[in-house]
Amino acid sequence: MHLRIALLAGDGIGPEVIQEAVNVLDAVGEVGGHTFEYMPLLIGGAGIDAHGTPLPNETLQKTLTCDAALLGAVGDNKFNKLAPSERPEAGLLKIRAELGGFANLRPAIAYKALANNSPLRHEITEGADIMFVRELLGGLYFGEPRLWDKQLRRAHNTMVYTQDEVERVARIAFDIAAKRPKKKLTSVDKANVLECSQMWRFVVDQVANEYPNVTVEHQLVDSMAIHLMTRPRDFDVILTENLFGDILSDESGVITGSLGMLPSATVGGKVNLYEPIHGSAPDIAGQGKANPIGTILTAAMMLRISGGLETEAKGIEDAVVQVLEAGYRTPDILSRNVDGQHAVDTQLMGRLLVDLV
Amino acid sequence: MHLRIALLAGDGIGPEVIQEAVNVLDAVGEVGGHTFEYMPLLIGGAGIDAHGTPLPNETLQKTLTCDAALLGAVGDNKFNKLAPSERPEAGLLKIRAELGGFANLRPAIAYKALANNSPLRHEITEGADIMFVRELLGGLYFGEPRLWDKQLRRAHNTMVYTQDEVERVARIAFDIAAKRPKKKLTSVDKANVLECSQMWRFVVDQVANEYPNVTVEHQLVDSMAIHLMTRPRDFDVILTENLFGDILSDESGVITGSLGMLPSATVGGKVNLYEPIHGSAPDIAGQGKANPIGTILTAAMMLRISGGLETEAKGIEDAVVQVLEAGYRTPDILSRNVDGQHAVDTQLMGRLLVDLV
Ligand SMILES: CC(C)[C@H](C(=O)O)[C@@H](O)C(=O)O
Ligand SMILES: CC(C)[C@H](C(=O)O)[C@@H](O)C(=O)O
Repeated sequence: MHLRIALLAGDGIGPEVIQEAVNVLDAVGEVGGHTFEYMPLLIGGAGIDAHGTPLPNETLQKTLTCDAALLGAVGDNKFNKLAPSERPEAGLLKIRAELGGFANLRPAIAYKALANNSPLRHEITEGADIMFVRELLGGLYFGEPRLWDKQLRRAHNTMVYTQDEVERVARIAFDIAAKRPKKKLTSVDKANVLECSQMWRFVVDQVANEYPNVTVEHQLVDSMAIHLMTRPRDFDVILTENLFGDILSDESGVITGSLGMLPSATVGGKVNLYEPIHGSAPDIAGQGKANPIGTILTAAMMLRISGGLETEAKGIEDAVVQVLEAGYRTPDILSRNVDGQHAVDTQLMGRLLVDLV
Repeated sequence: MHLRIALLAGDGIGPEVIQEAVNVLDAVGEVGGHTFEYMPLLIGGAGIDAHGTPLPNETLQKTLTCDAALLGAVGDNKFNKLAPSERPEAGLLKIRAELGGFANLRPAIAYKALANNSPLRHEITEGADIMFVRELLGGLYFGEPRLWDKQLRRAHNTMVYTQDEVERVARIAFDIAAKRPKKKLTSVDKANVLECSQMWRFVVDQVANEYPNVTVEHQLVDSMAIHLMTRPRDFDVILTENLFGDILSDESGVITGSLGMLPSATVGGKVNLYEPIHGSAPDIAGQGKANPIGTILTAAMMLRISGGLETEAKGIEDAVVQVLEAGYRTPDILSRNVDGQHAVDTQLMGRLLVDLV
């Protein structure tokens, strides 16, 4: 099969982790006779530096012609003084909106080999396997009106959802839950305070009626922040609105042990968007310290979802487990006082995975 | 000294934990010759059941005449179908607004004796001592407009802050930080996306200029959800807007090991409001299973802040440490496989503390 992939490397460690993902994709393609065509495009700070905008028009237009978009990371401290609407992150939010994917899938898995990397005790994380479904195009991120009025010395943002927006993302989450062994869906909200959440809960309950085999529960976002740490194994699919998903899925990174390990896929729109969870980490950019596994696992999600290449996707995921079990560690997952670990840099980690897929 | 205290026991386990706090207060009063006068008043579901409203007018009026208000918890599943504005929680939000306290102080401490109760490894939590300063009267909780429009099938809430609101809570947080040994303040926002947060960060930086001895840092709420679990010891005072503080302070409960341990004090208004962090836990109400320590430590904060009774407050806090070190445990803090623990119920835990203060 052939896949045209927009490569949105972005800022900081983005380019180096994307490069390793490309190497792994090429290796997979060679073995299976698949061809991946890459279209490197600017986004984020790289877009601002070159064209004065975090989402150059060319980037958007060309991405829209691709089968999938693979993004590294955006953001750099040097843009901190800009308004949210002009920062690198605005490019990310804009391309999310334009591509139209509203369901951001974020797995959080406890790898046996990384049991010592989590601040959580092994007996708490062991076997945890969560799939977050984060709504990605609504809520406070995109709600209008939004303004910091410097005359009035007052700022506001709007959290807004339509029932249709909740319904479509809920349906994706239920579809996923229905196919998983536990068949459980936990919907997160703050229904005791927010009207948005009250509606969210109502719509989720409606959609739930179509999925009698899926067990549904509702949790408040504050309680959920605790439960995820005290009993992560009790969860299966977790459905959240945009900001709650941002916070809770990052928090759940501690189950795995490093944000650098975590992939994501955004589906439901014109072009699916694949991006690791981690940020651009400008402080370690270009030093070979970044963990490319998050992006490589993101590429695996792309092969599975956009390419239908389940075997190849699984092959990458298994290779990651093997490499971890063999003790190879980028700095973010290196534990002190644990024997049998081999410190590797970004490139070597990538090459080890290339050799295994 | 004499303190008139509005007793807002509320729902679920509220009445039983408040009773234990009263017993401890009385014991402290007897020793030191202080008198505490209690005014029991209805709030939350108890208010709805008796008067059809979660904040009966009598409750509000009488509380406003008191020196301090001590609240148990509100909320009951039987009201889940009501709109947010009619639920027990609306009574809590309304009394918070009417009393006017905008700075909610929430300590999160790692007790040595409870090291095994946290899902976090001992070496991560050891020595952690955080003070959250959560803005309590702004943001999504109170922002207008707010509505679930059932015709339009659309809901919205408003996150709104004025610079003055940020400034006054920031000042309280800096004042606290300036008096603590670490003198560090971490302000939490989502400035890469929200205008509210961009303004928040600007105002915090302005106030910071007045406190040259306090080290300031800004963290994004999603990253903070990780840092609190991976390196809680690196934080001292954490300043947040309302919802972020709700989520992160609950999350930080895992540092201590149980929400049942955590107190809070809300200051800056007409009457200070003291409430434990935990909810009403209707499932265990009336069974002697609730941990009264959160409420008893809340009473200690009240003695310190509203009564100026530092010695007495410290006495209660020390008694809690002693009781924990002697192995007494309510069900929420009982660990399996740990020797030397004595299971106790709500009342016995209260009595043990009464004997020690
Ligand atoms: C960079 C930022 C805008 C983004 C978000 O908040 O969605 C990031 O935190 C994420 O989770 O992908
Ligand atoms: C009960 C609820 C309204 C409340 C809040 O969200 O403020 C609670 O979670 C808290 O943290 O005190």
